[in-house]
Amino acid sequence: MYRLRLQALQKALEDAHLDAYFMNTSDPHLSEYVPEHYKTIRYFTGFTGSLASLFVDREKAYLFVDGRYHTQADNEVLANGVEVIKLGTSGAKDPLPFALNKYHKIGLDGKRAAISLVNSFIDGGIEVKDIDLYSAITTDIAPLNNSLIRDLDPVYCGKTRKEKINDLLYCLNGKTHILSNLESIAYLLNFRGSDISYTPVFLAYMAIHQGDVYLFCDVDRFDPSQLDALYADGVIIRPYASFYEFLKTIASSLIIIDENKLNYAAYACLKGRSNRFVNTMSPIEEMRAIKNPVEQENCRLAHIYDGVAMVRFLKWLKESDKEQLNEYDVLLKLNEFRLSYKAFDLSFTPIIGYNSNAAMMHYSPTAEKNTPLHNEGILLIDSGGQYLEGTTDITRTVALGPVADIVKKHFTLVLKSMFNLSEVHFLYGMSGSQLDVLARKDIWELGINYRCGTGHGVGQVLAVHESIPNVRFTHATNKTEEYVIREGNLFSDEPGIYLEGQYGLRCENMVLAKKAELNEYGQFMCLETVTMCPFDLDLIAKEYLDNKTVAALNAYHQTVYEKLAPYLNKEEQAFLKLQTRSI
Amino acid sequence: MYRLRLQALQKALEDAHLDAYFMNTSDPHLSEYVPEHYKTIRYFTGFTGSLASLFVDREKAYLFVDGRYHTQADNEVLANGVEVIKLGTSGAKDPLPFALNKYHKIGLDGKRAAISLVNSFIDGGIEVKDIDLYSAITTDIAPLNNSLIRDLDPVYCGKTRKEKINDLLYCLNGKTHILSNLESIAYLLNFRGSDISYTPVFLAYMAIHQGDVYLFCDVDRFDPSQLDALYADGVIIRPYASFYEFLKTIASSLIIIDENKLNYAAYACLKGRSNRFVNTMSPIEEMRAIKNPVEQENCRLAHIYDGVAMVRFLKWLKESDKEQLNEYDVLLKLNEFRLSYKAFDLSFTPIIGYNSNAAMMHYSPTAEKNTPLHNEGILLIDSGGQYLEGTTDITRTVALGPVADIVKKHFTLVLKSMFNLSEVHFLYGMSGSQLDVLARKDIWELGINYRCGTGHGVGQVLAVHESIPNVRFTHATNKTEEYVIREGNLFSDEPGIYLEGQYGLRCENMVLAKKAELNEYGQFMCLETVTMCPFDLDLIAKEYLDNKTVAALNAYHQTVYEKLAPYLNKEEQAFLKLQTRSI
Repeated sequence: MYRLRLQALQKALEDAHLDAYFMNTSDPHLSEYVPEHYKTIRYFTGFTGSLASLFVDREKAYLFVDGRYHTQADNEVLANGVEVIKLGTSGAKDPLPFALNKYHKIGLDGKRAAISLVNSFIDGGIEVKDIDLYSAITTDIAPLNNSLIRDLDPVYCGKTRKEKINDLLYCLNGKTHILSNLESIAYLLNFRGSDISYTPVFLAYMAIHQGDVYLFCDVDRFDPSQLDALYADGVIIRPYASFYEFLKTIASSLIIIDENKLNYAAYACLKGRSNRFVNTMSPIEEMRAIKNPVEQENCRLAHIYDGVAMVRFLKWLKESDKEQLNEYDVLLKLNEFRLSYKAFDLSFTPIIGYNSNAAMMHYSPTAEKNTPLHNEGILLIDSGGQYLEGTTDITRTVALGPVADIVKKHFTLVLKSMFNLSEVHFLYGMSGSQLDVLARKDIWELGINYRCGTGHGVGQVLAVHESIPNVRFTHATNKTEEYVIREGNLFSDEPGIYLEGQYGLRCENMVLAKKAELNEYGQFMCLETVTMCPFDLDLIAKEYLDNKTVAALNAYHQTVYEKLAPYLNKEEQAFLKLQTRSI
Repeated sequence: MYRLRLQALQKALEDAHLDAYFMNTSDPHLSEYVPEHYKTIRYFTGFTGSLASLFVDREKAYLFVDGRYHTQADNEVLANGVEVIKLGTSGAKDPLPFALNKYHKIGLDGKRAAISLVNSFIDGGIEVKDIDLYSAITTDIAPLNNSLIRDLDPVYCGKTRKEKINDLLYCLNGKTHILSNLESIAYLLNFRGSDISYTPVFLAYMAIHQGDVYLFCDVDRFDPSQLDALYADGVIIRPYASFYEFLKTIASSLIIIDENKLNYAAYACLKGRSNRFVNTMSPIEEMRAIKNPVEQENCRLAHIYDGVAMVRFLKWLKESDKEQLNEYDVLLKLNEFRLSYKAFDLSFTPIIGYNSNAAMMHYSPTAEKNTPLHNEGILLIDSGGQYLEGTTDITRTVALGPVADIVKKHFTLVLKSMFNLSEVHFLYGMSGSQLDVLARKDIWELGINYRCGTGHGVGQVLAVHESIPNVRFTHATNKTEEYVIREGNLFSDEPGIYLEGQYGLRCENMVLAKKAELNEYGQFMCLETVTMCPFDLDLIAKEYLDNKTVAALNAYHQTVYEKLAPYLNKEEQAFLKLQTRSI
């Protein structure tokens, strides 16, 4: 099937006189999770991961994946005749240098490629043609669905739409701002939708131009009271499809765009007519990265709800006969515990990896493809939920029975690494790039590295991955790792150890940046852990912990018990009491 | 005296119709340590520190000093009618915003101000006049002295002059390079001088232009064999004073200059005539930051020699009746131990600070001004030597008798902080900015910060402060904190705690960056400690150390004993044995 689809694409690119066709996993809004309709890389190659690039030339298809997907991509696409280029391994080139070396003229869909990406091809001397070669082939792909758009009450988000718009206009100071980022649009308007799995957003574009706020989203998606409210707040509604034509009317303006977050087709409509551009992160991204006090309080509550679901799940798992279960059973049960309690959605497809499966960083079992469990070894569970009060992301690694000593050692050092970051007390001014080493040093000491960042920003009833703060030691898009951590930032703290073919271990809590004392040295900052769920004491080898981490773990477990117990029944409380005992 | 000198300067600036006159502590080579002749800030204000800026306007003089000199500047200049602006404290402005707020037209000596600095004044809208208003006043300042210029044998530096010149020409690839940095010139030519205290360099300029290497240094400073050798290596000698006229002959060239290290007067001579400029760190600075294997081996030996002198000094100090000594006696004795053994010079004026004096980061006692010691409390000793084999920089804090528990706690955490950095095992790609937190986190946890970097590059028989690597968390000139640490980098590791009015504590070792294992995760790196001298066990409160640090300390002390014992007599060995016992 995949081979036939690729052959059809190769035929189309030959007809178009192109050397190769480029695709990536984004939609026209360059979203991380995209509507099924836009999963064209999966359609052509079978790859189910959330991030990849693909070059299809007349001979071959090349799939580029990062460290999270090295093993998964091999498993999913090799049989379909696709070559996997594993970024981060010796000799593997990024799509750009790869293409520079190989192609003169490529095609791509300008609506689904960031300005920065297309410009990098062009700057490298490649001729780029904005052409859709795939829609004529993907006729049986899922259509777009228009979900209900609902209000998010200020009791959850702490600020009215009007206040946010005024803040934005103040920031822009007369400049034009064009954006297609769905989370920013949902955040600014206090609306949420479900056009996309896991991220409660709706397809729309926005333009702030000459002091007016334009929303490109079909009017029939709103009810009359929402339309009245938008009108009252000065938001002008235009059809979703009219966005690109509108852009062509903008002239002589200073326009703020994020070249990494706006598609090239939009830029092509703006270019010329004496427009000038400022390429920078949208001010809305910085606004939403700082959770206000109402959002912070809700976020804590969301994590208590999530913790209750997780504890019920862990109790079920620990008490089950694992010989009767496979990974997918566990996934379904976990989702059930969340969705039957307070969550209105998951925040991503859970990763449920048994032993060596967990070494694939973003492995996820399906009904068709999963591994049976046994009463031994370890299970990694990385999951999260969407709540009206907030978005969660949590990883726990659980012993299903006896576990080798080396696994316990590695788990203990991962747990210590997580606390090394969450317990830090630092002077204001530090970026994620400067804190990252805290979570990595004990793992590096073993001669091991985890091939991903240590932490990412998390949205408030929005995407589980936000670009700031970004805790990592290597350079990221827009140098987001240099963003200075501020009070109200919410991000994950998730070091791990992944040994291919053996096992994967991770501990992940979410933390909220807070001001600590202000003294003659400046403003000190600290991190408040909001995730509320025990770590598996069966996996801890105490001799690898220092006293400070033992104290931090015991204090954390005590808090977990105090926060969650009121929501649990007697049996659940007894289970949690045992799980959170002092060591 | 100082008031009269300032009045003379104020008269001169009035005559020149200027609002203010600007000075800093540099010479025409923008050196850190400068010939006595150029110590004009000291001449006008009495300030003896190595780094400061001064604005003298018609009413007042303002001295700008960083955290190291806050207390010292108060003590030295307040009585002379000079206001101290303490950088890094709330409300204190850098000289630039200060001037922008206050002056329209200022004067300065363009030979003694970096291009970047003068441009920042000009960009801010201040009219800058390049004028020397001080030489007519400082007629009784020390004259320049022309020291002997001597060869540094390749047995010490591992590369011939010709090899270094070829490397440089290869780097420059036809571009012109103008430099006035004395360390770079001495490094490239394998010469050393003593025109300046502590840094074995000689006054010279260089220009590499159209493939030719010009050295601006008076010919009578060399002996015939040196001149022959320079000629053989293709170095063209021109008089020191002819440098600026030579620059005026350069046209239509692409010129590499470091705007932070070349003076404005030189730039004024180059500007125009179709010259284009690349503002970047000199390639020579990057060359000298990487010590080659011969330099590394010599560096280890220099540190053994320095350790021998330090151990003899510590033995003397520990065995003396401190009631009979003052800080200056200790300074003289320390210098004597170094200079009577292998050192040909010191690498800077030792800091010998007793109790609260040590809280002044760069305090140094003099014959006139010092504090008597007692058989109690602590003495901070920060010092270093110049050896043919290398340059050293070491800090030890010593108990002179009973010491308060809080001091021991703080010392122990400072020592742990030093080991936190030196014991790190990290993936290649990390910069000083990303490692800094390791040395700071335990001190930050106390709500304390040290107001300086954690570490600086160290020259090889050159300046004790080199700009790369630069271990700090705040931004530095040229963003040197982002320099990626490479094999062969030599730098200091020196966290501290300084409590004004109470005490100052620091532990400083020098480390050499080395490759550790290369595996599937990449190239791991580690740091080899080259400093060989015990830490005072009388100051350690073991309950604040984790097992890892205890092991690192014991292993370090064992190495110190093994390396130094062969150079010591029986009594010294016995002393060192006790000092390096396992805890």
